[in-house]
Amino acid sequence: MSIIETLGKQAKIASRDLASLSTVDKNQLLVALADALVTSKEMILEANAKDVAAAADHGISAVMVDRLRLTEERINAIAEGVGQVADLLDPVGQVVRGYTNLDGLKIVQKRVPLGVLAMIFESRPNVSIDAFSLALKTNNAIILRGGKDAINSNKALIQVARQVIQDAGYNPNFVQLVEDTTHAVAEELMVATDYVDVLIPRGGARLIQTVKEKAKVPVIETGVGNVHIYVDKYADLDMATKIVINAKTSRPSVCNAAESLVVHRSVAADFLPKLEAALAGKQSVEFRADAAAMPYLKNPVEATEADFATEFLDYIMSIKVVNHFEEALDWINRYTTHHSEAIVTQDISRAEQFQDSIDAAAVYVNASTRFTDGFVFGLGAEIGISTQKMHARGPMGLEALTSTKFYINGQGQIRE
Amino acid sequence: MSIIETLGKQAKIASRDLASLSTVDKNQLLVALADALVTSKEMILEANAKDVAAAADHGISAVMVDRLRLTEERINAIAEGVGQVADLLDPVGQVVRGYTNLDGLKIVQKRVPLGVLAMIFESRPNVSIDAFSLALKTNNAIILRGGKDAINSNKALIQVARQVIQDAGYNPNFVQLVEDTTHAVAEELMVATDYVDVLIPRGGARLIQTVKEKAKVPVIETGVGNVHIYVDKYADLDMATKIVINAKTSRPSVCNAAESLVVHRSVAADFLPKLEAALAGKQSVEFRADAAAMPYLKNPVEATEADFATEFLDYIMSIKVVNHFEEALDWINRYTTHHSEAIVTQDISRAEQFQDSIDAAAVYVNASTRFTDGFVFGLGAEIGISTQKMHARGPMGLEALTSTKFYINGQGQIRE
Repeated sequence: MSIIETLGKQAKIASRDLASLSTVDKNQLLVALADALVTSKEMILEANAKDVAAAADHGISAVMVDRLRLTEERINAIAEGVGQVADLLDPVGQVVRGYTNLDGLKIVQKRVPLGVLAMIFESRPNVSIDAFSLALKTNNAIILRGGKDAINSNKALIQVARQVIQDAGYNPNFVQLVEDTTHAVAEELMVATDYVDVLIPRGGARLIQTVKEKAKVPVIETGVGNVHIYVDKYADLDMATKIVINAKTSRPSVCNAAESLVVHRSVAADFLPKLEAALAGKQSVEFRADAAAMPYLKNPVEATEADFATEFLDYIMSIKVVNHFEEALDWINRYTTHHSEAIVTQDISRAEQFQDSIDAAAVYVNASTRFTDGFVFGLGAEIGISTQKMHARGPMGLEALTSTKFYINGQGQIRE
Repeated sequence: MSIIETLGKQAKIASRDLASLSTVDKNQLLVALADALVTSKEMILEANAKDVAAAADHGISAVMVDRLRLTEERINAIAEGVGQVADLLDPVGQVVRGYTNLDGLKIVQKRVPLGVLAMIFESRPNVSIDAFSLALKTNNAIILRGGKDAINSNKALIQVARQVIQDAGYNPNFVQLVEDTTHAVAEELMVATDYVDVLIPRGGARLIQTVKEKAKVPVIETGVGNVHIYVDKYADLDMATKIVINAKTSRPSVCNAAESLVVHRSVAADFLPKLEAALAGKQSVEFRADAAAMPYLKNPVEATEADFATEFLDYIMSIKVVNHFEEALDWINRYTTHHSEAIVTQDISRAEQFQDSIDAAAVYVNASTRFTDGFVFGLGAEIGISTQKMHARGPMGLEALTSTKFYINGQGQIRE
């Protein structure tokens, strides 16, 4: 039996065992996990140090090493996050709709767990505990497959979680880590239709593309954000400057950071120098510009077609000048990865048309795209940001980890 | 360019054109379509007669020919269905949640269309108009690929629909029929990720299996129902008799009809002869029984393993005797196709445990499974019955044809 078959069968059994856990049971486990993470700090940091050392040896970039690194504060933050999940309202068992029909049948649609979740993710080790805590809160079993860069950290974190579950008298297979980080095993997980109810990939464009091509299990695509800010003819240019700088530079490695600036021709000559002046001496950003934007920039790089389709995740931004509003809509709908998009304008009709027409999970008027986040959007948690339309779109909280079931109670009714 | 590329590109454009249709626009089109179907009756019946004649030539079974046949009454019923869709509340634009956050951002999550739907379906020609009317009501473009047996009927029906759209001054590609009914073209539709947002297959187990194996576009699985009725030790046997006869014989060709009877050992000797006696002289049903059930039946056929996994869609029923309640749960969870399942019992604990444990879209206590239906369940419409857990589960109404989008309005907010 392959490793995925073994883990899959165990996860199926675990998902049945999980069905009987009450809200109180689940919350007690989460609180115990938060405590255990703090008391196991040294063991976790030791494991993480191995990953960080190996990453340095492999010549991984400083930004990526930082994503990988755990500290006492970061472990405290992970534990705090687990505690917050305990505080969230339990969606399982919630009645979505219900009524008594003309035949006297009592029909109730309730939220139920999805069953077995799988997650394939890249370097950040906190994802493993975040994902498990949300899976547990929704009575789902979870199979985690992290990147090889974080394997020691993930092993340590999941060992803590499994010990907590076992100490409480439950099946430790509520959460399982795929310790073999080869692509072959990841691809086996993508086609494990007998075991996996939903696969959530979290990572870069290449991972998402592989999953789209290979997966046979149901998938929720997440994360890739080729995010545009469109500065309209009727924009307040001071506001636009603040928004573009925040969206591009406040945290360039995240998916809701802006990657591309689209500017209306009639404001390009005013806005682009203003933007460069505001950045001067603070943060250097490489602008990859189309021909129309070049004259207004100090040291532009000529943009290639590929630049407009790239999520840089760095201090780089493509710039496109458009001749009219409709061209901006067409351009953004052509290059969008359906994550977050923004318009800066004082014109109410354009604001509404932009929000209605742009095909993305979150569409902003006069605000930075950096706000796309489950906590900001009032979901209380976040297991990822869906860029697809089915099941869940945008930041996903606990509800996204549930399905529904119809409960029908009769007294012998038959259909004529 | 292949036929699917052509239809796909046209559907993408149509889905953008559809975005601007108001509720009133959509309802007027639906009313016009209902009228046009009635006035085009002769043309539709003529086309259908060709399909019926060809089916007879191809030696297709009487039951299947009946599914294919249109009559004046059936066309009236299709038109009436279209009129009912006009009367339904429009889900597009509905606010799902919304609030003003601490930064003063106004965040609203609204229902929006999915975009381009595709449906692959088998013989019943009414499906084409039903599906189009629900797609139109939710501002979705739709590509229909019906079976070759109904090709003339589908062409006639879709021609009427496209004429109505065009006469109203809109893009007729709101609905398109794939006229090439080869498997190769259907399979091309299953991988048309550039054009199709969701594919809904409606048909037998073989079609669903092919879609599961080949599709790369997001899929909502529908329809296959290996439906069980479990008659418990604590069942009211008169009630159980009525329910089993209704669930098996009232309309055996539909997916919510029962296919398998599971009986607790302690009531088998009483119940099985009682069931046969109640059927005597009314409807003959072939019972394919396990060894434990054989002694209590008059002319049983010995069941094979395959019988227990088969959706007969006929006057055939498998019978399994179980030794205890837990065996019934395990048995049903092993063979369920996650559609509809029922228990007959007077024991409240078993009733609750059955509903919580059985992994199906609709789980009944003391009622016939024949009630699984979007209209009965209060959804006002039905585009199919989902047997998967993601996006929609059980009967799907208009909401299942929508996604959501976050609209965020600020006054220059940036994230610190």
